[in-house]
Amino acid sequence: MTSTTTYTSRVFPLDTMDVPGGTETVLRGGRHLFPLLPQAFAGVRRIGVIGWGPQGRAQALNLRDSLAGTDIRVAVGLRPGSGSRVDARAHGFTEDDGTLGDWLAVAGASDLVILLIADHALAAHHEKIFAALEPGAVIGLSHGFLLGHLRETGGEFPPGHGVIAVCPKGMGDSVRRLYEQGAHINGAGINSSFAVHADPDGRAVDLALGWSVALGSPYTFRTTLDSEYRSDIVGERAILLGAVHGIVESLYTRFRLAGDDEVTAYERSCENVTGPIARTISRAGLRAVREGLDQEDRDVFDRAYTATYAPAREIVAEIYDEVADGTELRSVILAERRLGARPMSRIGGSPMWSLSDRVRARRDTRDLPVDAFTAGVFVATMTAQIDEFTERGHPWSEIVNESVIEAVDSLLPYMHARDVACMVDNCSRTARLGARRWGPRFHAAYEQIAYPAVDHPADATLLAAFAAHPVHEALAAAAKLRPSVDISVT
Amino acid sequence: MTSTTTYTSRVFPLDTMDVPGGTETVLRGGRHLFPLLPQAFAGVRRIGVIGWGPQGRAQALNLRDSLAGTDIRVAVGLRPGSGSRVDARAHGFTEDDGTLGDWLAVAGASDLVILLIADHALAAHHEKIFAALEPGAVIGLSHGFLLGHLRETGGEFPPGHGVIAVCPKGMGDSVRRLYEQGAHINGAGINSSFAVHADPDGRAVDLALGWSVALGSPYTFRTTLDSEYRSDIVGERAILLGAVHGIVESLYTRFRLAGDDEVTAYERSCENVTGPIARTISRAGLRAVREGLDQEDRDVFDRAYTATYAPAREIVAEIYDEVADGTELRSVILAERRLGARPMSRIGGSPMWSLSDRVRARRDTRDLPVDAFTAGVFVATMTAQIDEFTERGHPWSEIVNESVIEAVDSLLPYMHARDVACMVDNCSRTARLGARRWGPRFHAAYEQIAYPAVDHPADATLLAAFAAHPVHEALAAAAKLRPSVDISVT
Repeated sequence: MTSTTTYTSRVFPLDTMDVPGGTETVLRGGRHLFPLLPQAFAGVRRIGVIGWGPQGRAQALNLRDSLAGTDIRVAVGLRPGSGSRVDARAHGFTEDDGTLGDWLAVAGASDLVILLIADHALAAHHEKIFAALEPGAVIGLSHGFLLGHLRETGGEFPPGHGVIAVCPKGMGDSVRRLYEQGAHINGAGINSSFAVHADPDGRAVDLALGWSVALGSPYTFRTTLDSEYRSDIVGERAILLGAVHGIVESLYTRFRLAGDDEVTAYERSCENVTGPIARTISRAGLRAVREGLDQEDRDVFDRAYTATYAPAREIVAEIYDEVADGTELRSVILAERRLGARPMSRIGGSPMWSLSDRVRARRDTRDLPVDAFTAGVFVATMTAQIDEFTERGHPWSEIVNESVIEAVDSLLPYMHARDVACMVDNCSRTARLGARRWGPRFHAAYEQIAYPAVDHPADATLLAAFAAHPVHEALAAAAKLRPSVDISVT
Repeated sequence: MTSTTTYTSRVFPLDTMDVPGGTETVLRGGRHLFPLLPQAFAGVRRIGVIGWGPQGRAQALNLRDSLAGTDIRVAVGLRPGSGSRVDARAHGFTEDDGTLGDWLAVAGASDLVILLIADHALAAHHEKIFAALEPGAVIGLSHGFLLGHLRETGGEFPPGHGVIAVCPKGMGDSVRRLYEQGAHINGAGINSSFAVHADPDGRAVDLALGWSVALGSPYTFRTTLDSEYRSDIVGERAILLGAVHGIVESLYTRFRLAGDDEVTAYERSCENVTGPIARTISRAGLRAVREGLDQEDRDVFDRAYTATYAPAREIVAEIYDEVADGTELRSVILAERRLGARPMSRIGGSPMWSLSDRVRARRDTRDLPVDAFTAGVFVATMTAQIDEFTERGHPWSEIVNESVIEAVDSLLPYMHARDVACMVDNCSRTARLGARRWGPRFHAAYEQIAYPAVDHPADATLLAAFAAHPVHEALAAAAKLRPSVDISVT
């Protein structure tokens, strides 16, 4: 799979980022570029944001603010009976001035149509949306799901329309909140990737870059829609959500069975992953987790890493095959159908989650040290995903975003504030289904294969590969390009 | 989905079995019917058994013994380089007398070709086998896998050839061992189902019945190849293997966390399921498990049953959808490809399995009572599968075989002798992959949804439905038709 990570722009000045084996082009964003937006949006006077979920809302607001003073209008399109109408009006999108309307009407009166409704709604209704488009309208996506769906069902994007994607690497709420902070603090925002899937008139790259700058993305990297789809869907089933759930549940049980009381077991497992381990990686990279340990704990880390890597890699490879093959998408479609009859059960029920308030109350009382065993398991799983994505040819910016940055800078801090089960049960439906499906596979692999092997000697070759891994260089380069303001979680 | 459970035979006398809502036709087997075999096999003088795995071996030997004295010859066909040649020769199949040869040569010189190679080999090589067949040769299967595979890959059975299935409801070793016992003890054997998928010349039913009688099946029921495929593939992922693994692992952990020592936890979980619970159901049906408990324990059973039923049903429904849809088969195909590079990991590693010898040593020292909690979880899961199969229209004989009888009379006794993990790791590849995939899903559903809810009051409606369930009637009718000799496990 090839991915075009270098590109040129007729509108924006571009930088390069060093990555193992070469460079990637990167667009450095910022409000100083807003005067260039009309040029980037040439040919687009009407932007229609379809949907008012977290992403729809954030993107509509950011775009409107960034394009204030131009003659480019942003309108919001909602499904009939949508419960979001009141909130959209409260944010100044109204029927009276033509900036709020029926989704098909808005889609049919826009030059750039940004589809931000839920995956299952997109699956069900994309055909009527496509049919409503004016000739030459550009289709915008923030996620590769629809590409996977069309492939699986034998559909296609309507010919003659540009198809572009700008994918913020974080949750919708963060996309808006950090944009607002960026008004005062330069550099705040969520990084994005962009892709051009169809470009009938040659203007797609600059349009996508303009959209990304207008969202407030501090840095924008290039990928393909297919690559984005795979890394995103696999990532949420692995290190971002699914594997994290399997890690913390299996470790909690292990520590309890070894004699730890409930609070200690929770602090060694979940609290450790979302707290000191995430912070260490965010601040200083993956190797720093091990380097901060004393000699005895490094041995514990090494054995846990050694025992975990192969079984975790096996699951990531299985997930990847099934996402790439369309099998995973079919199971999502089947699950959507069943959900009509039986709502999705909550998964925050296991005993550990009743402890999170008690543990949270202890946070200010002392610094929790990194637990070496937990760290070995977590870092091995993260590295397994990194290696699988590398083998499959993803761009380095995407590998580090989907395997490291989105976890330690976005999701784990959120889980630290709320807890993992809450996180999983509040994500997109596709992510929830994926985490439910694969979390238990990781859990079983850790319990049945990895943990029984932790008394074996550490594998020096495996650990040397970790120490010398090209990802550390890529992560350091990406770290220089991170937003300057931490994701704040209220 | 319709299933033809009534049929007629020009050769064999038939019985009927009462089932809820009607009757099913059943062929009562036995050695006294062997003189009718040449009539049933009219048009077939050469039977080719392709494969010498447990089923291939058992069926070739049983057929040869049953057809001794007729002019119907049984030959065994093996793949080039097969390691089974020596064992086949040791059992009297030789190149010299034409009863052992290359698989394609044997397939091309047989009137009935019984394909008993592994699923993945069938998937890879069925086209060349089909191409080798003589006109009019009948294709015999013991499993619906190939039908699923052809559907998924757009292939088809070659037109003009009969396609029949005879599916013994037990492992290959039991099919042979009980046949041998049947020489001395009338009625010993493994029941089978049969299906007719293509019948160009009208002789398929009697040919299938003859094959089943010659295998030593005490009773033969009718189904369809599609129905067999679904119930078999779903069953091994649910109550037969996958769910059992999830049940015993999650219960063991629960009991340990509640303070039980290792041996007690094992005896309350795994040993209980494979021992007293399986024996009670086998001897006296499902309700007897609860009826054997005192009032206090019945309350424990009721709450565990109530908490478990819905989450277990949810997983069974998901498995069923994915098997029926072909999605599960795609994941099996992908896994086969990965196994080329990375062999399947063993799953017998979690700590509980190290205890099985100690627990086994205690068996003669006292009678282990049924654990009420474990029984509630197990029976609820079993009933969930029964209900899903009923809803999907399977014949009653198939429902009770795939959901109850194969478990309590075949697999659980085997696990009692060896242990669950050993069982799982010694089944067919398709079954192993399925158990690995879905066992953890059951485990997570029990831990995260069912067990947190066991303090809730029991659901009287749910338990009344269990008490009045039509399956008890069907199971009692099938019990009358069970082999008279228990499955012996050396």
